[in-house]
Amino acid sequence: MSMVGKTGVVVRNIERADSGLIDELTRYGVATVHESQGRKGLLSSSIRPIQQDIAISGSAVTVLVAPGDNWMFHVAVEQCKPGDILVVAPSSPCSDGFFGDLLATSLQARGVRGLVLDAGVRDTKTLREMGFWVWSRAVHAQGTIKETLGSVNIPVVCAGQLVNPGDVVLADDDGVVIVRREELPAVIEASRKRADLEEQKRLRLASGELGLDIYTMRPRLEEKGLKYYDSLEQLEG
Amino acid sequence: MSMVGKTGVVVRNIERADSGLIDELTRYGVATVHESQGRKGLLSSSIRPIQQDIAISGSAVTVLVAPGDNWMFHVAVEQCKPGDILVVAPSSPCSDGFFGDLLATSLQARGVRGLVLDAGVRDTKTLREMGFWVWSRAVHAQGTIKETLGSVNIPVVCAGQLVNPGDVVLADDDGVVIVRREELPAVIEASRKRADLEEQKRLRLASGELGLDIYTMRPRLEEKGLKYYDSLEQLEG
Amino acid sequence: MSMVGKTGVVVRNIERADSGLIDELTRYGVATVHESQGRKGLLSSSIRPIQQDIAISGSAVTVLVAPGDNWMFHVAVEQCKPGDILVVAPSSPCSDGFFGDLLATSLQARGVRGLVLDAGVRDTKTLREMGFWVWSRAVHAQGTIKETLGSVNIPVVCAGQLVNPGDVVLADDDGVVIVRREELPAVIEASRKRADLEEQKRLRLASGELGLDIYTMRPRLEEKGLKYYDSLEQLEG
Amino acid sequence: MSMVGKTGVVVRNIERADSGLIDELTRYGVATVHESQGRKGLLSSSIRPIQQDIAISGSAVTVLVAPGDNWMFHVAVEQCKPGDILVVAPSSPCSDGFFGDLLATSLQARGVRGLVLDAGVRDTKTLREMGFWVWSRAVHAQGTIKETLGSVNIPVVCAGQLVNPGDVVLADDDGVVIVRREELPAVIEASRKRADLEEQKRLRLASGELGLDIYTMRPRLEEKGLKYYDSLEQLEG
Amino acid sequence: MSMVGKTGVVVRNIERADSGLIDELTRYGVATVHESQGRKGLLSSSIRPIQQDIAISGSAVTVLVAPGDNWMFHVAVEQCKPGDILVVAPSSPCSDGFFGDLLATSLQARGVRGLVLDAGVRDTKTLREMGFWVWSRAVHAQGTIKETLGSVNIPVVCAGQLVNPGDVVLADDDGVVIVRREELPAVIEASRKRADLEEQKRLRLASGELGLDIYTMRPRLEEKGLKYYDSLEQLEG
Amino acid sequence: MSMVGKTGVVVRNIERADSGLIDELTRYGVATVHESQGRKGLLSSSIRPIQQDIAISGSAVTVLVAPGDNWMFHVAVEQCKPGDILVVAPSSPCSDGFFGDLLATSLQARGVRGLVLDAGVRDTKTLREMGFWVWSRAVHAQGTIKETLGSVNIPVVCAGQLVNPGDVVLADDDGVVIVRREELPAVIEASRKRADLEEQKRLRLASGELGLDIYTMRPRLEEKGLKYYDSLEQLEG
Repeated sequence: MSMVGKTGVVVRNIERADSGLIDELTRYGVATVHESQGRKGLLSSSIRPIQQDIAISGSAVTVLVAPGDNWMFHVAVEQCKPGDILVVAPSSPCSDGFFGDLLATSLQARGVRGLVLDAGVRDTKTLREMGFWVWSRAVHAQGTIKETLGSVNIPVVCAGQLVNPGDVVLADDDGVVIVRREELPAVIEASRKRADLEEQKRLRLASGELGLDIYTMRPRLEEKGLKYYDSLEQLEG
Repeated sequence: MSMVGKTGVVVRNIERADSGLIDELTRYGVATVHESQGRKGLLSSSIRPIQQDIAISGSAVTVLVAPGDNWMFHVAVEQCKPGDILVVAPSSPCSDGFFGDLLATSLQARGVRGLVLDAGVRDTKTLREMGFWVWSRAVHAQGTIKETLGSVNIPVVCAGQLVNPGDVVLADDDGVVIVRREELPAVIEASRKRADLEEQKRLRLASGELGLDIYTMRPRLEEKGLKYYDSLEQLEG
Repeated sequence: MSMVGKTGVVVRNIERADSGLIDELTRYGVATVHESQGRKGLLSSSIRPIQQDIAISGSAVTVLVAPGDNWMFHVAVEQCKPGDILVVAPSSPCSDGFFGDLLATSLQARGVRGLVLDAGVRDTKTLREMGFWVWSRAVHAQGTIKETLGSVNIPVVCAGQLVNPGDVVLADDDGVVIVRREELPAVIEASRKRADLEEQKRLRLASGELGLDIYTMRPRLEEKGLKYYDSLEQLEG
Repeated sequence: MSMVGKTGVVVRNIERADSGLIDELTRYGVATVHESQGRKGLLSSSIRPIQQDIAISGSAVTVLVAPGDNWMFHVAVEQCKPGDILVVAPSSPCSDGFFGDLLATSLQARGVRGLVLDAGVRDTKTLREMGFWVWSRAVHAQGTIKETLGSVNIPVVCAGQLVNPGDVVLADDDGVVIVRREELPAVIEASRKRADLEEQKRLRLASGELGLDIYTMRPRLEEKGLKYYDSLEQLEG
Repeated sequence: MSMVGKTGVVVRNIERADSGLIDELTRYGVATVHESQGRKGLLSSSIRPIQQDIAISGSAVTVLVAPGDNWMFHVAVEQCKPGDILVVAPSSPCSDGFFGDLLATSLQARGVRGLVLDAGVRDTKTLREMGFWVWSRAVHAQGTIKETLGSVNIPVVCAGQLVNPGDVVLADDDGVVIVRREELPAVIEASRKRADLEEQKRLRLASGELGLDIYTMRPRLEEKGLKYYDSLEQLEG
Repeated sequence: MSMVGKTGVVVRNIERADSGLIDELTRYGVATVHESQGRKGLLSSSIRPIQQDIAISGSAVTVLVAPGDNWMFHVAVEQCKPGDILVVAPSSPCSDGFFGDLLATSLQARGVRGLVLDAGVRDTKTLREMGFWVWSRAVHAQGTIKETLGSVNIPVVCAGQLVNPGDVVLADDDGVVIVRREELPAVIEASRKRADLEEQKRLRLASGELGLDIYTMRPRLEEKGLKYYDSLEQLEG
């Protein structure tokens, strides 16, 4: 635990989850997976996609960077494998443009699927054209320097969540959720069940049935004291 | 007036404006309607659409919710009729994801046209695919609970504006404006005139005529003291 | 310099840069040009486009406006020439909707390419349909008045940067950068070189070569003390 | 209700609550009163005092102002009586400095106790020295103009809450809460009881008794599934 | 003008305004001076003092720093003279703690009166104890590095305003205003007059006279259409 | 690690650091300690004290709460010992007023020294009078409910930092820094040395010596290309 925030270290080998299960995650959506694992692991809503209608999942290669310094991205590229997603956190808040199309080209050459970055990104049009998907705090052309060491593949706090190297990342239009590597099978299982249940509910709701009845909410609402009035006038009178 | 903020009540019957006039509103745009009614009723610019190039109008079914608690959405669904728009305000600021595709399915089954929510929304890709239109403060997958009563169809303050049940909502790419139900005919009339006038001005401006001349601004600018200089050097000299 | 913030003046004639060079700027992107001129001139990342995948460049016609008052836009239109871009700064922070489709029609009739505005814009759907491109701090339908003088074609501070009339504006998906008129030839030259170099690097990175090797980073990283570990366990042990 | 947002009107006579009850309010604190009236009426936490350890209460004289325009303050002064508090809302968000020591002098001469302002204030040191108490969104020296009509003594939405003229305002270090004039006696009564109860609880808690026992929370916590572990190791194991 | 944003340069000799006039500025307050010079030169309201009830004025020694890099503070100290105020702007937004008690000790030894910093400051308790006065965007203990050149004594944009070396800085509880060196005599003269006028108005207002009458506002308010009503009921009826 | 975010658990026994070392921490200040441990562990600058000129240190009792729900505070009180500091993180961003004087009374009865809360606090005047010290994201009177389980004494992410139960908290006017329990002796040692060194530097700087010379910065500045000019004119010429 004391590794969080430590600078100057790179871990070469990390454990990754089963790739089939990782890929299956994108069927369920960030909201469903977040629910299925007990409402934990969700990054701050300030992390937004630069593209629309794209969902990806992958193994986290974590990067700690100094504010305004993207040196460690280059160190991180070497540690990436096909199916990975880079998860990058600055050690102090910063919205500079740490990442652009050259780094994306390098990551894409290694099979990396995308980037989650609690900072700024640039070359966004090119990144969309390349199909390199990014979730970031800001779009900002401001350049960075290469002077200060950070770390690769240690636990980092990114946008309010602890992310361990090898944790599983799911990102879509709703945001980004982290699944612990060792919990992935259980979370997949719970997500499958939840998705099935939701599909059944969707059919009932689409047919006009009310959630009040499907979920038997009326007695508890009454018990809590909910009162119905025929009109505003009746209520005020 | 003392109903604002009151919890635990549902009003079943609200008056709605003429549906033909409601539908006509979408011809004019939020900016035009806001001007036509004397620059009132505009929600905060923090309320943004999750889709592009869509405009809707409808009768407000108002919902007061506790922060992080979406129970009252289910109560509200039952009170909705075709052509309505749900307008939801939390009693304390909150950007959790109160609303997703299941609730949208239920509302769509009742003919509801969309949602205006001073909080967060999730399942945004699915909502766009469904054609269920949403304006919200945030996109956030964070789930909510069902423990605390709010109210349905009482006046609420949503994103800085008082909204009465049955008020008319117009939402497009520019944001959301509220028209008092009883003022709709006058606002429609004023919007028609304004749109006609703007069309005439547009033609003159497109032909190269200047606003300075069309609106006879030059004398008043001169009277206020506006000075012209041939160059920066002349001004500084 | 003491002209910054002065109200009530309009400068009729400003020097503009070579139009061929101005047009060439759009080949390089805001991030590249920002780098090529020594990382200066970049507007705040709070200025965002209302459209996607559009880049424009042009000569700045600068406008200082009072908060909530768009009178000077009309004065500015008369001073615009084909190829210009309006750069507008309020004298106090304001997100009201200073600009809509009528003013855009007028500017478009004079050949103006777009607007950079540290405030709000409205009629955004129509603006996109017209092909009048806008970068702004907010989308907001809130109207403005016409009571207070500002100035046209004096130096202004817009979104954190000093902009002189006749400076060159480049705006794309990443934001907005200002190039001093007199520095444009040198910046173009530097941008060409940088773009060429980046293209070469892109090919090498795409082929799988690492930035660590292309930029010979390994010795300096080692000198700064970067340590590699085979696993988290080895690091913690 | 359709008066909210209406400009160009001044209401001369408003009903005020009993002055003894108004004064009693300051005994209880904003948090207590907010609880005692069912958690409604609390202004946004963005409204902060410019002084410390001061609490005031009074009758609201409401003012709607145009952004960047403080003309209506002068109109409002004439409508104030001893014991009043000015409650001011701009029709569009604005942090300009609408208010300074001259207006405070005028209000103080009429016995006004303070100002609640969803905008900026200036001359803050002098205001503190004068003992004129202010709660505002910002401290900002930026001046305003006098060109556009607003209204005095109509219902306004201020910092997220509807405030009617004559409503009772309570402001202290925690913020500002609005009590409906007609509900004041009941709210005072509830606040007295709550304060008494809290005093009893304070004594028990101060003596070391636990809230878990005083409020009999243990059974419900257990029922919800709370589990105790002797150590983190036991939990993880 | 093209010096703004240029890095790697230090200007040794700057012109300073008359020290007697500089000192006189603190008699008037930021709000008064801002008004007296035509409402220009006011820094963003995000720049706040770390102490209360202190006003200082002095000659600006300007510093451009890289984000997260305070190296140029040390270069700037050497250029300071008694009566100066350091005005520091990062080239990209950053709230790191660039400044603490050691740098303050060094500046105080040279007679510098304070610091205006569009970034973060630390050791705030010690700074207050030392009587070294600071206005900053944030209080943040986050340290900075010393790797990248900025500049000293070139024009900078700080918190939205252009500041030239030798410009006069006035800072108090309301914020910070910049006066052009060459305009100081005229601004002092205007401030004296304004302060005298305000004192006269204060006496009249304190005696109960209304601004409506002192400023003869009633006719213009009537002309604009302001209507008085005896009660809300009369207005609504 | 997978405990982060887990709800419904309480850990009774945590290891605490040596109380003498904990107490010594307050001699050094948050900025010094942050530097001494390699610039890690600093909470976001959005966490601010409600009092001035107070520094405390203690052992973290960590609390995870649901947004708008302060139930777990009562559970946490029972786990506190003299010298502890409560560190509270909501599972989703929330600025409601989770904490007031009653809970403070209970914690004070157990010898707890203060509270660090990434949310809102109320009863701030009373808290200051009691001498119960608080660092929080907001001051807000908004009440909370008691419906949803969180956890006590598991690792939490609070304001951007991972905090383990038993970690050491230091809070002063500059903010809050976390020291890992097992690293405390080394951090104390490094802080002592740093404080000694800073004292020596302070004396030299106070005597007028320049940091440029004390730290031998001139050669490296020259190597990086810093150029001195006698005047702005010389630079521009």
